[in-house]
Amino acid sequence: MITGIPVSEGIGIGKAVIVKKENSIERYNISNTEKEIERFIEAIDKAKKEISEIKKHAEQNLGSDKAMIFDAHLLILNDPEFVKMVKEKIQQGTNAEWAVNETAKFYESLLLGLDDEYMRERANDIKDVSERLIRILNGESDSEAGLKNLAEGSIIVAEDLTPSETAQMDKTKVAGFVTQQGGRTSHTAIIARTYEIPAVVGVKGVLGKIKDGDIVIVDGYQGIVLINPDKQILEEYEKRMKEEKQKKEELKRFAVTEVKTKDGRKVKVYANIAFPDEAEIAIKNGAEGIGLFRTEFLFMNRSSPPSEDEQFAAYKAVLEKMEGKPVIIRTLDVGGDKSIPYLNIENELNPFLGCRAIRLCLGHRELFKTQLKALLRASVYGNLKIMFPMITTAYELKEAKSILQEAKEELKKQGIEFSDKIEVGIMIETPAAALVSDILADEVDFFSIGTNDLIQYTLAIDRTNEKVSYLYDPLNPAILRLIKMTVDNAHKKGKEVGVCGEIASDENIVPILIGFGVDELSVNPAKILSIKKKITETDCNIEKSKVNKYLQIN
Amino acid sequence: MITGIPVSEGIGIGKAVIVKKENSIERYNISNTEKEIERFIEAIDKAKKEISEIKKHAEQNLGSDKAMIFDAHLLILNDPEFVKMVKEKIQQGTNAEWAVNETAKFYESLLLGLDDEYMRERANDIKDVSERLIRILNGESDSEAGLKNLAEGSIIVAEDLTPSETAQMDKTKVAGFVTQQGGRTSHTAIIARTYEIPAVVGVKGVLGKIKDGDIVIVDGYQGIVLINPDKQILEEYEKRMKEEKQKKEELKRFAVTEVKTKDGRKVKVYANIAFPDEAEIAIKNGAEGIGLFRTEFLFMNRSSPPSEDEQFAAYKAVLEKMEGKPVIIRTLDVGGDKSIPYLNIENELNPFLGCRAIRLCLGHRELFKTQLKALLRASVYGNLKIMFPMITTAYELKEAKSILQEAKEELKKQGIEFSDKIEVGIMIETPAAALVSDILADEVDFFSIGTNDLIQYTLAIDRTNEKVSYLYDPLNPAILRLIKMTVDNAHKKGKEVGVCGEIASDENIVPILIGFGVDELSVNPAKILSIKKKITETDCNIEKSKVNKYLQIN
Repeated sequence: MITGIPVSEGIGIGKAVIVKKENSIERYNISNTEKEIERFIEAIDKAKKEISEIKKHAEQNLGSDKAMIFDAHLLILNDPEFVKMVKEKIQQGTNAEWAVNETAKFYESLLLGLDDEYMRERANDIKDVSERLIRILNGESDSEAGLKNLAEGSIIVAEDLTPSETAQMDKTKVAGFVTQQGGRTSHTAIIARTYEIPAVVGVKGVLGKIKDGDIVIVDGYQGIVLINPDKQILEEYEKRMKEEKQKKEELKRFAVTEVKTKDGRKVKVYANIAFPDEAEIAIKNGAEGIGLFRTEFLFMNRSSPPSEDEQFAAYKAVLEKMEGKPVIIRTLDVGGDKSIPYLNIENELNPFLGCRAIRLCLGHRELFKTQLKALLRASVYGNLKIMFPMITTAYELKEAKSILQEAKEELKKQGIEFSDKIEVGIMIETPAAALVSDILADEVDFFSIGTNDLIQYTLAIDRTNEKVSYLYDPLNPAILRLIKMTVDNAHKKGKEVGVCGEIASDENIVPILIGFGVDELSVNPAKILSIKKKITETDCNIEKSKVNKYLQIN
Repeated sequence: MITGIPVSEGIGIGKAVIVKKENSIERYNISNTEKEIERFIEAIDKAKKEISEIKKHAEQNLGSDKAMIFDAHLLILNDPEFVKMVKEKIQQGTNAEWAVNETAKFYESLLLGLDDEYMRERANDIKDVSERLIRILNGESDSEAGLKNLAEGSIIVAEDLTPSETAQMDKTKVAGFVTQQGGRTSHTAIIARTYEIPAVVGVKGVLGKIKDGDIVIVDGYQGIVLINPDKQILEEYEKRMKEEKQKKEELKRFAVTEVKTKDGRKVKVYANIAFPDEAEIAIKNGAEGIGLFRTEFLFMNRSSPPSEDEQFAAYKAVLEKMEGKPVIIRTLDVGGDKSIPYLNIENELNPFLGCRAIRLCLGHRELFKTQLKALLRASVYGNLKIMFPMITTAYELKEAKSILQEAKEELKKQGIEFSDKIEVGIMIETPAAALVSDILADEVDFFSIGTNDLIQYTLAIDRTNEKVSYLYDPLNPAILRLIKMTVDNAHKKGKEVGVCGEIASDENIVPILIGFGVDELSVNPAKILSIKKKITETDCNIEKSKVNKYLQIN
């Protein structure tokens, strides 16, 4: 039994599938260098074949844009300078794995030292290719290929998973996730919760403990991982799994109804989604709207920004799927921690305190205006609300709104239709925004409190940094006071307040938020039903009487 | 005329001294490789001589501990593997500069890839040594050596200055600083203000515009830099310089008096210092105490932590110099952005949101307890107050106080004397601390508001990141509300509040802080006199009537 951080509830039982990435590379002396060079050439051929296969798959499933990256990989394998340098190193008597790794490191450091952002990005390609070559030389099989053909009931065990890995995965076959790295808001954690797959992350040293094919139990409630458990334990967990399934069935009655608190107050339950497809899961689970549609997926993993038409199609798709229900679409929210080559984002010492989200958009006016025009055009297909992320000052909000106005005027000139009822809101996720929410409330139609970032900045802790995670506490009175302050300020001006951070899906915190007067909770699609149930069990008056206790006000 | 950010007031006129660091390295083919290798060997000899000289100077002036780093540099130059690799590259037909740079990059990437923090640090040594070799190969002279022998009235022009560079500089000879990089709180800016040297930083492309020996005017009021100005302008600025000198003379009368506002309220003016020596400048300028004695200098640029005795000597020195006046000593305030090899600080994605200051100390209990014991022992030599940095939660404060208690008990057992009147306070520099200052006030004797960090976290901007510096605004109502909240909460519990951030030395903001009720302003020694003058010109009642306007409360 080993433990980690439980990030997605549920019990998963299945066979371990190990996703290995870091190869440990040993150096040893080679006497027959000719033969070693031959082994290297064979590995190159095999790598080319693998990449061509993946490229074909990517073209069919992810679009030609995303497939382009694999051309860069093939170019490296065909580069005579690269091949020559490896050969030279082998001729000096080292094994091919070591020679490939040394050569790759040389090129990587060369590329990373350049001023050109695009060239620096190429260092990643070198790394990918060399890892593939080393894996082939080590005689190991392709883990990515394995992810596409998972057997029913697989427990995925990895260092951490990248978006491209989870994208390739057939998630209906996954019974659980176990990763060495990550925290509550890591990519793996978010995917796990969206698809209701039990997950435990941050399990130190797990890759050394689980072997391919081991029977593994993932307890996503308590953060426990059991390896090859005895019969009695296995039966116990199987029983719990069955009970859970039954509970889930019972929750389904909340899918079709609006919910009110015990004393009759309506609290809306919306869904957070990151891809248009997820709107379907949201509807199925009874979402009354989309409280946060992240638009980053449109901008990531490509070499040029998405066109207005491409964006329009994605926004329209979600608005149509939601059939007139409110859809809050958040404008681009990226920064220096994400690599978007065409934005030329410089490396920053503290990307979370850097040029991100609305700050970045205000510095890329045309990119921003294109997104706003696509949103405006889509507005006629449903009930669109536009939301700006990471607003810190009233000045930024005015700037963003003036660019929105420009976009409207340009569309008018072009004779293109858009709704005249689009509400505009902002995320409250910096302490400054919460502290001046009385001033900001005059300028918007609604607030949505992004508690993940709000906690991060208020407590001055990077939420991806495990060394300070002991300070991460949504119930810290400083956080609760900012939430209460924001709700009160908004209500004084007759504006609604939602909460779209992780705490909105925490059944222990939901009653507190209701007591504070929050109007809407936007949660992971998988949590909608249980949060709806929780609302029906909550009594506003009792919760209100406890407000000062939570705020620690005497 | 070029412009930048004015960071230290005053007019400086003098001859430019360029401090170059980045060498652009060209690659060209060499036919006579034998001769090129000879040139390389000569450069090595010269570099060894230079380093030995610097080492001697460092031993005499900075102590043998800090001189040790130069032994590492000599080791690299004597490393046969390093020399061999460079020679091989020259034999392949490239010039020595390129060969040195390639070899250095290879070793750097090798070292940076290792798990051992100490070994990763060695990558910096490789870089330093290779830069020195390349500079020698390029026939350029040693800029560091130049800094030691400055002529009267030098204007230092640099990319940016490191602490070791400013330490070597004879600051009485410096008439001004001009740097390409940096902001208000960069190292150069802080040093400039401490020594009252006019400075303009963040001057884009200045190294391409000023040549060694150019006549340069630095206008530290307006952020203007004039290169080889004509006679008329030069005379104008010389006149202004004279007037300024006179004004400074007039301010001296405030050095010996306590000051009160027009309506008779006492406001204390203390000094921020970073080295024991600065206490003398503080006293000379009429500081009524030390509001912030940073202890980082004791811990940086060395390979093992300072002993209790070494720390005791430094704390005692300042307490004795201040002759019974209050001395607030802040416990160690470092984090992942500073390299302290013996603490094994891992690289963090966002060091400003990471394991720093009190967080780091609570994780290194022995290191922390040693500092506290040294402080306790020194307490009998003056009026010591201990201050913990970066407190976020009441829990951390309790932990820190319990370690202080342990330190007291250990000293008691050892029969070592310490004062029983030591006050304990905290920095208010996270939004959380300000927001729960009512709760924290019960547990401390005083607060000191660290506005630099408070602004950084509240507005979610890295204050060293130029791309978001447009958001840096101490008058943002969110910041002012937190300051007011902190003062009110402290006063309700009868505790005093100081401000030790940059805004305490801003004459435009001082009246606002007085209006909020701040009890003490702790400023750069160079600003004490003008802030004292400002206090005498301020009327509390008028300022109080403007409070709601500043807070933007209707």
